[in-house]
Amino acid sequence: MIAAKGYAAQSAESDLTPWNFERRELGPHDVLINIAYCGVCHTDIHLTRNEWFPGIFPMVPGHEIVGHIAEVGSHVKNFKQGDRAAVGVMVDSCLHCEDCLNGQEQFCSISPVLTYNNLDKTGTPAYGGYASNIVVPEHFALHVAEKLDFAAVAPLLCAGITTYSPLRKWKVGESHKLAVVGLGGLGHMAVKFGVAFGAEVTVLSTSPNKAEAAKKLGAHHFVVTKDEEQMKEALKSFHFIIDTVAADHDINPYLALLKTNGVYINVGMPAEPWKLSSFSLATGNKVVAGSGAGGLPETQEMLDFCAEHNIVCDIELINIKDIHTAFERMLKGDVLYRFVIDMATL
Amino acid sequence: MIAAKGYAAQSAESDLTPWNFERRELGPHDVLINIAYCGVCHTDIHLTRNEWFPGIFPMVPGHEIVGHIAEVGSHVKNFKQGDRAAVGVMVDSCLHCEDCLNGQEQFCSISPVLTYNNLDKTGTPAYGGYASNIVVPEHFALHVAEKLDFAAVAPLLCAGITTYSPLRKWKVGESHKLAVVGLGGLGHMAVKFGVAFGAEVTVLSTSPNKAEAAKKLGAHHFVVTKDEEQMKEALKSFHFIIDTVAADHDINPYLALLKTNGVYINVGMPAEPWKLSSFSLATGNKVVAGSGAGGLPETQEMLDFCAEHNIVCDIELINIKDIHTAFERMLKGDVLYRFVIDMATL
Repeated sequence: MIAAKGYAAQSAESDLTPWNFERRELGPHDVLINIAYCGVCHTDIHLTRNEWFPGIFPMVPGHEIVGHIAEVGSHVKNFKQGDRAAVGVMVDSCLHCEDCLNGQEQFCSISPVLTYNNLDKTGTPAYGGYASNIVVPEHFALHVAEKLDFAAVAPLLCAGITTYSPLRKWKVGESHKLAVVGLGGLGHMAVKFGVAFGAEVTVLSTSPNKAEAAKKLGAHHFVVTKDEEQMKEALKSFHFIIDTVAADHDINPYLALLKTNGVYINVGMPAEPWKLSSFSLATGNKVVAGSGAGGLPETQEMLDFCAEHNIVCDIELINIKDIHTAFERMLKGDVLYRFVIDMATL
Repeated sequence: MIAAKGYAAQSAESDLTPWNFERRELGPHDVLINIAYCGVCHTDIHLTRNEWFPGIFPMVPGHEIVGHIAEVGSHVKNFKQGDRAAVGVMVDSCLHCEDCLNGQEQFCSISPVLTYNNLDKTGTPAYGGYASNIVVPEHFALHVAEKLDFAAVAPLLCAGITTYSPLRKWKVGESHKLAVVGLGGLGHMAVKFGVAFGAEVTVLSTSPNKAEAAKKLGAHHFVVTKDEEQMKEALKSFHFIIDTVAADHDINPYLALLKTNGVYINVGMPAEPWKLSSFSLATGNKVVAGSGAGGLPETQEMLDFCAEHNIVCDIELINIKDIHTAFERMLKGDVLYRFVIDMATL
């Protein structure tokens, strides 16, 4: 076994504390990655606190992982020692069902193995990226260009692909008006990708004081959703809306902002079900689309796109000892736009 | 003014009774249609009884209208006396907004004039097709091939286009597995169109005794939704589901029957909002799509497609005096599949 250390929640009631554990020995197709940086996703808070469902403890969170290849298994073809590598929200899947064969391993029919809070094929708990290292099959490791700011790449593995994937699926681009709801980790990436794809991007926010930040990210317009006049002017004006808000909210007023045949993309995952009126959808042939992360081929495509267009996340680098302060600040929305743990501080 | 007689509800509490009223004199672009048949849509029950919102009374319902041109205005180009003609759910719109220019007059930004329970551009109530005649701008009249059973064409103007339009928008066809939820007026047309477009069609129904009827309509498979085993076997198996059920129901179990990237099309218009889990949508990148009727160009395309493929509705022709019995039977789901009023009985 390979020694690892990390930060773990011992139960849903406990803070994250240092914890020593083990990674499996490398199989022929596995790579060992020494983790350099790990992004802090809102999911890490939800899962370590059992906010969605009961978790597997001890839990080492973290699924926005970048680092360097330390060792490769005997049959590994695409990585060598010293390479930059990244791991996102999953670390295994069956690789032979329809979804896996279509490069959508995140929807594997047998069930993908998520990066943490999940059991792997042998029934062993998977531990995430708030740790010194990780072992994954090379199929689940991604290449990262040397030119990109490495720490700022980490959140691309979740916040990045989660917004990139649906914008690509729906072919959002030139001649499209795209609105982004919410300006957090996901929202700021949706703005960057929307702009990079050539869309005219509007940020919709309850907070007028985010207007400046939205423009800095490249957004062309800003609408304060609490301002009735601005909302009225925005009626039937967008081809696409991407909603990144994790808190419960009414989406029907936003549907009215879509043009006929407009698409409302949700990536925010509120815990409570939406109440969705069939009339809101029928009037204008509206579409509500969900999206869950992205498969491996598309995640690599996204990382390559980011290298080509010099896109990374806006981050605040933290010492792992400050993870609880980071969680508290995230709950207040006080982060521009993603915390990333410097694993050298472990 | 032009004399007309029809059946009207004098209030939301009253039965439909014979009523004499007037149609406007023909403007230069108007046509006068002597109505031969009018389909009985579930909407007629909802609206005459104020089940969705307060209506405009007296109300002459009916928006599945076929008849013959009796007279044409001085500038009418596409119709002449004696021609077959049809009118659907709307009788006017602004004709210059983005939606109208795109042939989606039903979503006119100024507001389409619906065939009944609506005010026209002069503020006069529009009266529907349970009547001897109707006056509409020629833009809102459609051509019907002589070869088709005329009475059985009438419900195509609502039940037909409402199912045809989304199946076309989403390019449902060969190599697709399509499920149809509900086997009423809309559902039976969804089966016919799905089969005609080359899809493999499954009817999903709570009633095992509809299996025979589904096969008669051309459906390839039948799933009893109350049977847990059958539902389990159907998981992740459909590319598309079209839901035609007007009653309130939980759609989340149906979303699980969609393949990754599958599309759930709703045309059933339940009064209560759905409770839609963001997790049901995100897992498998699912899509929920609304659809409201169809524009004039597409309605003509649908009628032409029906002529080419010899598709009409399955109907039960009734005397207008039996309209209340028809309403009562519809509420019990006791009709195969649409009542059509023979206007000669008026």
